[in-house]
Amino acid sequence: MGEKEEVKLGTWYSPVVLRAKIALRLKSVEYDYVEEELFGSKSELLLKSNPVYKKVPVLIHNNKPVCESLNIVEYIDETWNSTGPSILPSHPHDRALARFWSAFVDDKWFPALMAAMVAKSEEAKAKGMEDVEEGLLQLEDAFITLSNGKSFFSGEAIGFVDICLGSFLVFLKAREKLTKEKIIDESKIPSLYRWANRFLSDEKVKKVLPEIDKVAKLIREFEDRAQSVSSTS
Amino acid sequence: MGEKEEVKLGTWYSPVVLRAKIALRLKSVEYDYVEEELFGSKSELLLKSNPVYKKVPVLIHNNKPVCESLNIVEYIDETWNSTGPSILPSHPHDRALARFWSAFVDDKWFPALMAAMVAKSEEAKAKGMEDVEEGLLQLEDAFITLSNGKSFFSGEAIGFVDICLGSFLVFLKAREKLTKEKIIDESKIPSLYRWANRFLSDEKVKKVLPEIDKVAKLIREFEDRAQSVSSTS
Repeated sequence: MGEKEEVKLGTWYSPVVLRAKIALRLKSVEYDYVEEELFGSKSELLLKSNPVYKKVPVLIHNNKPVCESLNIVEYIDETWNSTGPSILPSHPHDRALARFWSAFVDDKWFPALMAAMVAKSEEAKAKGMEDVEEGLLQLEDAFITLSNGKSFFSGEAIGFVDICLGSFLVFLKAREKLTKEKIIDESKIPSLYRWANRFLSDEKVKKVLPEIDKVAKLIREFEDRAQSVSSTS
Repeated sequence: MGEKEEVKLGTWYSPVVLRAKIALRLKSVEYDYVEEELFGSKSELLLKSNPVYKKVPVLIHNNKPVCESLNIVEYIDETWNSTGPSILPSHPHDRALARFWSAFVDDKWFPALMAAMVAKSEEAKAKGMEDVEEGLLQLEDAFITLSNGKSFFSGEAIGFVDICLGSFLVFLKAREKLTKEKIIDESKIPSLYRWANRFLSDEKVKKVLPEIDKVAKLIREFEDRAQSVSSTS
């Protein structure tokens, strides 16, 4: 398998890069990690490996790049299928549900959060946060149904939806620190709240999580840059 | 497997519904098909089966709904894994490429086409069509690399990317008829042009394709409705 030849391209704070890191960690795969510059121009390796989107994460395995974070997680699960726990459940219907809810996080819930964060007016921001909360209530219900009393979305081990949604938790915690606004709110989504604490205290996950304070500092930096762009344009 | 108990919800013209029909046909699975009303209110079965998006297609198998067209195709491939040809390739890297390019069609190429179609100004329309053409050139390159001289994206049999992109061909042909504007243009994307002809003349695919003329008529009807809404609002 050439497990020492892995190269993973990423940026340290990125939730989607974190997904690949968690999946590799769960499968106990050793890899070389190449940090992509945050504000500089994109590296040649990135442009060559992901010419369509020019985005991290990219997993390079046996000299072949794999792009898009959930695609990478499925690739890791299928390639190291006898190492570590399965990330996707085994039954086709459970797999379909895991893919459905992960796509929901990426296509519906996260875009709502982004929209709320960049909204210019208070009204647009409030509407965006309503969508975010509505999405979390749907995810709370999904968690209750899918986990069926177990610790994670598809059983007692961290799986596909856990990685997908869990990858945003540090970012959310950092944002909560900055704004004092609760997003993963125990009173509204108690099951997800407990799930989030379990996810963030998992030993393998903890090893690759970025620090909340560092992420909070970066969010401020991004906001300042956006501010200075909008005030000069 | 209860293969007579299938219920599939759809609308006859829909490209994404066609994906599920083609996959079931490739696997020789018999099913009951329930047509969802086109302009009426959504059926109770649909609202109950896909409460998140309230959209077709929905595949109901063993009384459990599966939603989202590519998710349904993967479910069909995994459930009837010993019937008919595999829809996803077997090697993890080929699977990752198939998922990557299918997501490209749905997340990048098709939204560009929709944007071009609904654009109000000639300028926005021209910009949209540029993105559509650029996407087709990328897909042409992907086809050449992935097919490696074979008939379809992942070999001699119709697979995941073929179903994903091929599901739009009738719609594109219908639009070409209406506007006389070529989209699958032999002079620009010769490999995709020949691939499209092969896909549309496949015996199993032909059995479930909607008629081009009927789809063209429906596009006109949609446009007229949009027109009358915009002129009364």
